[in-house]
Amino acid sequence: MPPSFETLRWELDGPVLTITLDRADHMNAMTRTMRRELCRVLDLADGDDAVRAVVFTGAGTRAFCAGFDLAGGPASFDPANRADDAVDEPDRDGGGVLALRLFASTKPLIAAVNGAAVGIGAAMTLPMDLRIAADGARFGFVYARRGIVPDACASWFLPRVVGIGRALEWSLSGRLVTGAEALAGGLVQRLVPADELRGAARAAALEIAENTAPVSVALTRQLMWRMLGANHPMAAHRLESRLIAERGASADAREGVAAFAAKRKPAFEGRVSEAFAAPEPWRTDPPFGACDER
Amino acid sequence: MPPSFETLRWELDGPVLTITLDRADHMNAMTRTMRRELCRVLDLADGDDAVRAVVFTGAGTRAFCAGFDLAGGPASFDPANRADDAVDEPDRDGGGVLALRLFASTKPLIAAVNGAAVGIGAAMTLPMDLRIAADGARFGFVYARRGIVPDACASWFLPRVVGIGRALEWSLSGRLVTGAEALAGGLVQRLVPADELRGAARAAALEIAENTAPVSVALTRQLMWRMLGANHPMAAHRLESRLIAERGASADAREGVAAFAAKRKPAFEGRVSEAFAAPEPWRTDPPFGACDER
Amino acid sequence: MPPSFETLRWELDGPVLTITLDRADHMNAMTRTMRRELCRVLDLADGDDAVRAVVFTGAGTRAFCAGFDLAGGPASFDPANRADDAVDEPDRDGGGVLALRLFASTKPLIAAVNGAAVGIGAAMTLPMDLRIAADGARFGFVYARRGIVPDACASWFLPRVVGIGRALEWSLSGRLVTGAEALAGGLVQRLVPADELRGAARAAALEIAENTAPVSVALTRQLMWRMLGANHPMAAHRLESRLIAERGASADAREGVAAFAAKRKPAFEGRVSEAFAAPEPWRTDPPFGACDER
Repeated sequence: MPPSFETLRWELDGPVLTITLDRADHMNAMTRTMRRELCRVLDLADGDDAVRAVVFTGAGTRAFCAGFDLAGGPASFDPANRADDAVDEPDRDGGGVLALRLFASTKPLIAAVNGAAVGIGAAMTLPMDLRIAADGARFGFVYARRGIVPDACASWFLPRVVGIGRALEWSLSGRLVTGAEALAGGLVQRLVPADELRGAARAAALEIAENTAPVSVALTRQLMWRMLGANHPMAAHRLESRLIAERGASADAREGVAAFAAKRKPAFEGRVSEAFAAPEPWRTDPPFGACDER
Repeated sequence: MPPSFETLRWELDGPVLTITLDRADHMNAMTRTMRRELCRVLDLADGDDAVRAVVFTGAGTRAFCAGFDLAGGPASFDPANRADDAVDEPDRDGGGVLALRLFASTKPLIAAVNGAAVGIGAAMTLPMDLRIAADGARFGFVYARRGIVPDACASWFLPRVVGIGRALEWSLSGRLVTGAEALAGGLVQRLVPADELRGAARAAALEIAENTAPVSVALTRQLMWRMLGANHPMAAHRLESRLIAERGASADAREGVAAFAAKRKPAFEGRVSEAFAAPEPWRTDPPFGACDER
Repeated sequence: MPPSFETLRWELDGPVLTITLDRADHMNAMTRTMRRELCRVLDLADGDDAVRAVVFTGAGTRAFCAGFDLAGGPASFDPANRADDAVDEPDRDGGGVLALRLFASTKPLIAAVNGAAVGIGAAMTLPMDLRIAADGARFGFVYARRGIVPDACASWFLPRVVGIGRALEWSLSGRLVTGAEALAGGLVQRLVPADELRGAARAAALEIAENTAPVSVALTRQLMWRMLGANHPMAAHRLESRLIAERGASADAREGVAAFAAKRKPAFEGRVSEAFAAPEPWRTDPPFGACDER
């Protein structure tokens, strides 16, 4: 891993990479630099077999991420003010670029929501796999209160994560959602006292790291997210048939069955960097702009 | 608004249009006339920028809507008895025409379920955005008990609103579902004493009207419902990228950010009637009968 | 019904067919023979109009089904060890063949989960319509702990049955899920003391059998499951329009309305074996291997 980023801190402790959004003076508000550094971190995590899970949290106690940085004043959302984005991502919502990068991750992603998560700060947790929150955390899908619309692919992810009823209620009103509501609605899987948050996120990461095969986890994550958009279970059957034949013949499967029979912890050796070296059609996102909009 | 309908009452109080199904002597059972008047009301609401939210409720205390009117006796569901429908909607389920019209609304739709909601009376609330019920309300997806099948697009909406497990249990048994079950299952977002129902629905409508931009609400509603059927988050990314560029450059976005910074209520000026004047492919429903059935 | 199977017991009591996975000495672990016998039972149930619902349970008190039989040792999942499968199902995951057969059923399927349901034992309950569990039951989506990937179309079914958040948490960790968690997550619809399980499953089956039209139930089941994968409510509208015209003109609809008006139990005469005699495009699964994977 590179030693430092401008807007993020990172720590690799055993198999768990913790990424801290590190702009506490600005409630960890999202900037163009932070967004790009997050994408870069995901590339590094994917390429490093030592990383078994990634935890995202925010510096300080007030915010996980208070949303897009509004330092630009009333015209902050005006694309005329983000001309430099047009160079590498013409006409694309930057939050969506980040969301699609999270979606494509081969490592499990865990949000440790330590405070307010608003706008892109809430939306960026949706393509993650597990959300654990401090009991004082708040979530805000505030687009309609700012005069804009959902971004970061939230219109696809939010109804799938919390159900269309809650997605509409929360988004059409733009009101803040408490931790208890988030738990009841499936937006977070666990709510803990603030001082137990880091430990709970680490425990969840270790539960994966210590018990499961990295290649299995990477494939399972991709299968579940992508089959969520498939029209018929036959699409899953085709993919699963191919993958289970391949993984069933692997050393990991032999180790998994042997460890289970011996009631011991497994020691899996399959490497994500090798298993995912070749791109596969089903893990390749459709190109931006080329397809039918519906 | 026109002064009167045959089967509905309406009241516009500030930004909230309340529509009352007004056949209390028949438990507000759905007739062909009521269905057409409901579609007409939705057209009027869409075209009137003074309307920020629409509340639907039923006259009297017994029923929200007891289902399709069975005054025709045992052959009530026989298409041979509804020849006049064939003129303007040949071969189409009338309930589905209503459901698709609700789906296409640019205004938030709130069901205030004051009593029994059965058959089309239950199904018509599904494409709405928020369902609040009196604690004595009951829901019935009774198709299989009447010897028919789901209508009003309930086979698409119900599994998405309450999950496939509950959708199947409720529909295969056809049993009545209590308010408490409806709340636990996400069919209603709130359960209140009967005498607080109108107030609760109005409060929910005002929370939207007083805090959010009308154009943002209309676009968010359409994005969420339509992306619920998209195969990949890239579809959302494409749409959101275009819309956030457009809305980000709008006066509403400047007002939203300025009001937030000043901790005051926003005063949005964007008008739905203008923003939605031109039809867009992603908001246009596919034609009836032309597409693949799967 | 044929008098006996090698791995299953069956009992037809009134309209309820109960199938017991009958390998208690092996925790009812799934074998190739059991999988084929289950598919055969479903064919028989579909063809027998006396069967109104099918209950699946496990012999003994420890397990519903402990997963794929690992008697083959560490290489149990290796396709090289299942050459005989290649004859009739080349390159197909056997669990997926079973899941698709359950999906296609015209009879309501009820899982009575009497103990551990792990791997294929958990996954095979997902395409069923109702899951009732003994309070000591446990569920395990353990693929990643065994070094393999989801099978039996679980990557399609699990996120739809319990939501993507729970599907990911349970599958990426591979941990056991308690009955209480399964209830809270919608994986089971009811949790009962072990000695009430058979009675509760039978009561649920009878509630369907005594009150609903068999053809309506078969069509509703198929509509709900298949429209869960449709991109737009128009797909449901097209199908429902045709089916409600057909069923609305049926003797079952006349009986349903007449019985409701007379407040008596209906006596439906429509037969599934006749109504489903002709194959229909929307109930035909796409061929294995022919389609786009996404």
